[in-house]
Amino acid sequence: MATLEQLCKEVWEANLGIYRGGLVTMHSGNASGIDRQRGLVVIKPSGMDYEKLRPADMAVTDLEGRKVKGRWKPSVDLPHHLYIYKHRADIGGIVHTHSNYATSFALLGRPIPAYLTAIADEFGNQIPCMPYTDNEGDHIGETMLKYMGNAPAILLAHHGAFAFGATPKAALKAAVMLEDVAKTCHLALLLGKPRPLPAREVRRWYDRYHTTYGQKQ
Amino acid sequence: MATLEQLCKEVWEANLGIYRGGLVTMHSGNASGIDRQRGLVVIKPSGMDYEKLRPADMAVTDLEGRKVKGRWKPSVDLPHHLYIYKHRADIGGIVHTHSNYATSFALLGRPIPAYLTAIADEFGNQIPCMPYTDNEGDHIGETMLKYMGNAPAILLAHHGAFAFGATPKAALKAAVMLEDVAKTCHLALLLGKPRPLPAREVRRWYDRYHTTYGQKQ
Amino acid sequence: MATLEQLCKEVWEANLGIYRGGLVTMHSGNASGIDRQRGLVVIKPSGMDYEKLRPADMAVTDLEGRKVKGRWKPSVDLPHHLYIYKHRADIGGIVHTHSNYATSFALLGRPIPAYLTAIADEFGNQIPCMPYTDNEGDHIGETMLKYMGNAPAILLAHHGAFAFGATPKAALKAAVMLEDVAKTCHLALLLGKPRPLPAREVRRWYDRYHTTYGQKQ
Amino acid sequence: MATLEQLCKEVWEANLGIYRGGLVTMHSGNASGIDRQRGLVVIKPSGMDYEKLRPADMAVTDLEGRKVKGRWKPSVDLPHHLYIYKHRADIGGIVHTHSNYATSFALLGRPIPAYLTAIADEFGNQIPCMPYTDNEGDHIGETMLKYMGNAPAILLAHHGAFAFGATPKAALKAAVMLEDVAKTCHLALLLGKPRPLPAREVRRWYDRYHTTYGQKQ
Repeated sequence: MATLEQLCKEVWEANLGIYRGGLVTMHSGNASGIDRQRGLVVIKPSGMDYEKLRPADMAVTDLEGRKVKGRWKPSVDLPHHLYIYKHRADIGGIVHTHSNYATSFALLGRPIPAYLTAIADEFGNQIPCMPYTDNEGDHIGETMLKYMGNAPAILLAHHGAFAFGATPKAALKAAVMLEDVAKTCHLALLLGKPRPLPAREVRRWYDRYHTTYGQKQ
Repeated sequence: MATLEQLCKEVWEANLGIYRGGLVTMHSGNASGIDRQRGLVVIKPSGMDYEKLRPADMAVTDLEGRKVKGRWKPSVDLPHHLYIYKHRADIGGIVHTHSNYATSFALLGRPIPAYLTAIADEFGNQIPCMPYTDNEGDHIGETMLKYMGNAPAILLAHHGAFAFGATPKAALKAAVMLEDVAKTCHLALLLGKPRPLPAREVRRWYDRYHTTYGQKQ
Repeated sequence: MATLEQLCKEVWEANLGIYRGGLVTMHSGNASGIDRQRGLVVIKPSGMDYEKLRPADMAVTDLEGRKVKGRWKPSVDLPHHLYIYKHRADIGGIVHTHSNYATSFALLGRPIPAYLTAIADEFGNQIPCMPYTDNEGDHIGETMLKYMGNAPAILLAHHGAFAFGATPKAALKAAVMLEDVAKTCHLALLLGKPRPLPAREVRRWYDRYHTTYGQKQ
Repeated sequence: MATLEQLCKEVWEANLGIYRGGLVTMHSGNASGIDRQRGLVVIKPSGMDYEKLRPADMAVTDLEGRKVKGRWKPSVDLPHHLYIYKHRADIGGIVHTHSNYATSFALLGRPIPAYLTAIADEFGNQIPCMPYTDNEGDHIGETMLKYMGNAPAILLAHHGAFAFGATPKAALKAAVMLEDVAKTCHLALLLGKPRPLPAREVRRWYDRYHTTYGQKQ
């Protein structure tokens, strides 16, 4: 079983990943992870410079958002992370960004169809977009849960994106791939009329990718 | 009370911030800060390489623009900074850039509506655009003051943007967020017809952001 | 004759090149090279972080894809590389990416005409686009071979691009130049109606470039 | 009087500047400088990696292009540089790039009007575009000389851009500013119909910039 320090390091790396990957600027965005055995959530502290963060700066709370460890206040988006962790036992890492290309689709309330084999590989379907939701109570968490289905990422109208994975690193990967495919699709939509891949082809790419890819299978 | 050296360091960091963030190229742009107790303004020197600047290279003047310290001439945009400092006691840092996406709206004389929750959070309203103004005397400062209202940033038609804050770092943040939201809005405008958030929603995001965010409240 | 270690280093450098050049994100893309005398292919391992790769991490297989050396599984795209190496004795390095601008043309199934002298120099013709092809067996390799002709790069509809060269570095160069010219052509197509260079002019640029350029002639 | 070593260092820095500034990729582009007293031109060697260049790698030729010093062949674009140095005694540094936004205008044969105060400051007029010209003999040099007028930069239809200055660094600055303003103008042209500044306003910005800016006046 991994230690809490290990999780803090993984969450810190995911936060660095969204910053160095250009998915966030200044203080926007955040990444978190959960230790299911201890019932603890680790998340970026609120309003701090990414470049100066250290693993020990991560905020640690319980599933009700009560601070357990760390000198800093957690991200103000903590409630949305907690809501998903409480309702989706399969999710171990969450990333939130306003990355530009993904958010340009979100601003228009448009999902991103499975235009590309990379979307088929990583997302297995179109990337959904939930309607505009205010930031009161659990509204954002509730709406995400309702619209996300099994997708590893969801667009939030007028707002940005959340990405999910079994670990903070998997969520980072989904967030990076979301922005990457959003950019390519955006560029193609300016040039012409792309057509989505047939559902059967999407399924074949997804199944292959999830059975043969990487070092762990 | 902070020392003048501390302010020079903060202004230098804000200048590095706009350079490393890609908001300026070569010698364009500048950041400044004010020491209200001493009546001194610290600003980037004119026409020097960002990468080679050191805190001690910052130019120090009084509120009339007379050089007080430093071997270098101050930025030629100093008069616009001074005008704002003299007329807005709440402002302690100013940043000027020609960042590409923001300036593309400025070139067209278009304000950026509150399309995104990030605009609501940071700007609390649409981002205003002032009409084209020549560079004689205090014309730019006067027009900015007239059109900026309470906004932390303003677009200058055919020219670029200024951003404001209580500190140089806060002005840097406003300049970075301006370019970030300008890019997302630009991309969405190429794909479709985004709609601004309702004024009531904008207000709620702004109020929440300014009461709960960061480490200092 | 170069050693296998030398080839591993060249393939590692080509993989770093596509990562640092922004042609790939996270784990997407891959570069390979072949040692014709030993009958060995060196390729990026599957699903690993580019930044952490070392030359010794490269996967080494024979031309049937059987692992000969290395602790890691090779890229899942290995079969496409092998197919080309088996059918094109002139090719010694292959690069696969989903680079954004090139893939925006690919998504639409559009070749890139020889609009620019840089396309004439490097590619000597339009950059071809092959039809959508599923990922079963040798389908991708077969279709590439059929549509690529003598081109050093080909677009794959709904998918991405492959680039080829006598060495891994030459393939890297073709992949980088492809994305560079794709970006310029994309930008021009948004502004107006570019016209291809006449075939005779394309030929003159290509011939000059391939007889006078570089240090080795 | 500066030494030849000093000029090699300045030319090397200008070449690094176009590479680090993202104006060139792989081996494209080049920067040069001239030592008028010695009648020597220093230029990037042909087809070499920017990152590995050292000042001593620069190629040194006389005004007829005969190699005087250095182990490497000069850039194949040397004749265009020489032609300008021979016909324009006021020019001491030249930069050639295919930077994406500038070249998107060039591909369409479109000059860039003085839309922005930054164009007025740096260029003092619209940025001209010369017609497509083949690469035989002195054709490119002759056509540039005919169309460039007093502009510090010119677009070459279907090809790229050249920038000029009293020193290699001044030419670098013109090349960087060209790409920067080309990007902003491109973005604005996608959103609406920008209008050029009136000629009188352009003149006022230009005159002010060239009398008050920087540290040397």
